[in-house]
Amino acid sequence: MIYADNAATTRLSKTALDAMLPYLTEEYGNPSSLYALGQRAKEGIEAARATIARCIGAAPGEIWFTSGGSEADNQALRSAAAIGARQGKRHLISTAFEHHAVLHTLEQLEGEGFEVTLLDVHENGIVTPEQVAAAIRPDTALVSVMYANNEIGTIQPIAAIGAVCRERGVLFHTDAVQAAGHLPINVVTQNIDLLSLSAHKFHGPKGIGVLYARRGVPLRPLICGGAQERGKRGGTENVAAIAGMAAALDAACAGMEQNAKKLTALRDRLIEGLERIPYGQLNGDRQRRLPGNVNFCFEGIEGESMLLLLDDAGICASSGSACTSGSLDPSHVLLAIGRPHEVAHGSLRLTLGEDADEEMVDEIIRAVTGTVTQLRGMSPFWRDLETGRRTHVFAK
Amino acid sequence: MIYADNAATTRLSKTALDAMLPYLTEEYGNPSSLYALGQRAKEGIEAARATIARCIGAAPGEIWFTSGGSEADNQALRSAAAIGARQGKRHLISTAFEHHAVLHTLEQLEGEGFEVTLLDVHENGIVTPEQVAAAIRPDTALVSVMYANNEIGTIQPIAAIGAVCRERGVLFHTDAVQAAGHLPINVVTQNIDLLSLSAHKFHGPKGIGVLYARRGVPLRPLICGGAQERGKRGGTENVAAIAGMAAALDAACAGMEQNAKKLTALRDRLIEGLERIPYGQLNGDRQRRLPGNVNFCFEGIEGESMLLLLDDAGICASSGSACTSGSLDPSHVLLAIGRPHEVAHGSLRLTLGEDADEEMVDEIIRAVTGTVTQLRGMSPFWRDLETGRRTHVFAK
Repeated sequence: MIYADNAATTRLSKTALDAMLPYLTEEYGNPSSLYALGQRAKEGIEAARATIARCIGAAPGEIWFTSGGSEADNQALRSAAAIGARQGKRHLISTAFEHHAVLHTLEQLEGEGFEVTLLDVHENGIVTPEQVAAAIRPDTALVSVMYANNEIGTIQPIAAIGAVCRERGVLFHTDAVQAAGHLPINVVTQNIDLLSLSAHKFHGPKGIGVLYARRGVPLRPLICGGAQERGKRGGTENVAAIAGMAAALDAACAGMEQNAKKLTALRDRLIEGLERIPYGQLNGDRQRRLPGNVNFCFEGIEGESMLLLLDDAGICASSGSACTSGSLDPSHVLLAIGRPHEVAHGSLRLTLGEDADEEMVDEIIRAVTGTVTQLRGMSPFWRDLETGRRTHVFAK
Repeated sequence: MIYADNAATTRLSKTALDAMLPYLTEEYGNPSSLYALGQRAKEGIEAARATIARCIGAAPGEIWFTSGGSEADNQALRSAAAIGARQGKRHLISTAFEHHAVLHTLEQLEGEGFEVTLLDVHENGIVTPEQVAAAIRPDTALVSVMYANNEIGTIQPIAAIGAVCRERGVLFHTDAVQAAGHLPINVVTQNIDLLSLSAHKFHGPKGIGVLYARRGVPLRPLICGGAQERGKRGGTENVAAIAGMAAALDAACAGMEQNAKKLTALRDRLIEGLERIPYGQLNGDRQRRLPGNVNFCFEGIEGESMLLLLDDAGICASSGSACTSGSLDPSHVLLAIGRPHEVAHGSLRLTLGEDADEEMVDEIIRAVTGTVTQLRGMSPFWRDLETGRRTHVFAK
């Protein structure tokens, strides 16, 4: 099996599992308990908090554990909205191609009386600091721009966007779920006030994430209850997952430079191979994208059929975000960068992991090329294109 | 080590860990992914959903996965409040001794324009259906009464309370976090519309729980984002924890009758032993309490000191809820049942697990008796009681 869907989730690393196992066996205490068994669990949490803080240039007191990236996004946006509302600021800025955890929270906030501006995304999948600066108003409470897009992998100039926000006195949140462990993060030099990350995107466990909030940015609890996380997040802490996340992030950061170099070369080999397929095109900027991310549109192809044939060939890939796989709508990300509906339906996302090598990449190229040919042979839509009854979107 | 704090958390069972391990290793797919690796994870989730539904008499479609009991409580109350608000009903009923995940959510809702009635709790720690019936008004949207209290373990007559609610057309939620796996649950015969449970209270993993919502009771997402959980709970599913929870609940329900019988006998032995300590008293009804729960107040004792000495003696116990351990306030549960401040500070909760036996119970009795004597010998407060400068609350 070739697993080329590392943006959907990653395999839990042995390092992370080993960090979890003590807390799944002997060290089962509740970290809020006063006796030694509980205090050792508490120490495990605090050690993890310190590790994660170090990995992103934060202080341990600025790290808050959540059940994942979506919860962190929800809490970040709701906290910033509450801060804004207290100052009479009810305008929020984000982009049209954010993850739904951001977009749907913004929709909820719109229903509660906030005004939302979604910035257009350039065809290359990148939002500029100038766009952000032009959209900021005196009543703007928050700017939320993702670090790297979850479908097309394009990397946003978040340090520059953060600088604009800082200068204008606006809070800046970045959804770094796809970036954490893959791209350098330093919340100080990148001018970040709020940041979300999710462990299972960097070989940590599912069901755990982090919300970073700069000191002085008060969080609003999304889940209220006990005194855990200094009253900002009720519920017994998921100690094992927290320990696993810290171990995974630490390892990812240590190997980041080397992995990025290797994956960038493999990614470019994969892009070159798939560019030989006629009437297809890479989505998103060719260079400014995550090291392992490749995302193509092929004319005349229905995304789901392609995935099923690739699965038969032993290749795990996706048509976009796993989070929206139940939906029949074309990707909002591809529509945001200007792809027409009929090709946005035919997208293929391949995201390589640390186990990738040239042989794997070449096998993916062969399988995708064969699958596209096979599907086009059966497609009435493709016949219309070939016979000139429809117009091609992409050059041959 | 004697672990007598099973109400705070339980040791993950081997059964539960074995159910988790495949998803922490080979079966790491994202359950939203279309390929086989993802679909096997999806099947694992749906099998777990069916198991949990069966354990509580629900249909699989009525089971929603959350990150734990607190999130389930928050979502249950917010969903019921939203349903009520749409019908112009903005009155909520609960009790003074609920978990803070319920009480603090109610406080938030009060701030949003809802009116909250908290029922008094009888000295025996039990709320009656008559109290509930008397409090229901035409604009009541929800009654939330916990199944078993997390500190004193008293069992509420939830089937009868549910019947009152059903008759009056009011939604009924029960926080069954302490009850699940220990007391029988049947959402149909017990007239339950919404129910919360948490896996780590019955030898499942931390960080996972369930919200049951009767068909026809629409949930409001607390965490919005992707299409997971049919749009009611965004975020990649915690597959391993879900599988572990189902295995743990299944095992707990299978062994429930036998465990309850054994633990009830040990609990009564422990109560009898601790009753021999002068100026102390059991908190909560003697019979209508969780099989493993013992909760005492001792005059002249500061709870935290007792826990530290017991820890030195190798006994893990608590003064009340682990969730409030950071707080210096006396237990709101003990105040609710009428304990004065000065004895509510000296409470001791001992909650036995399946590993308990008579020898363990006798060792606990010896250690607690010795600890109380030792602490009273050092306490100026106790000298005041003994010399008659203060009045005793309890009989000798």
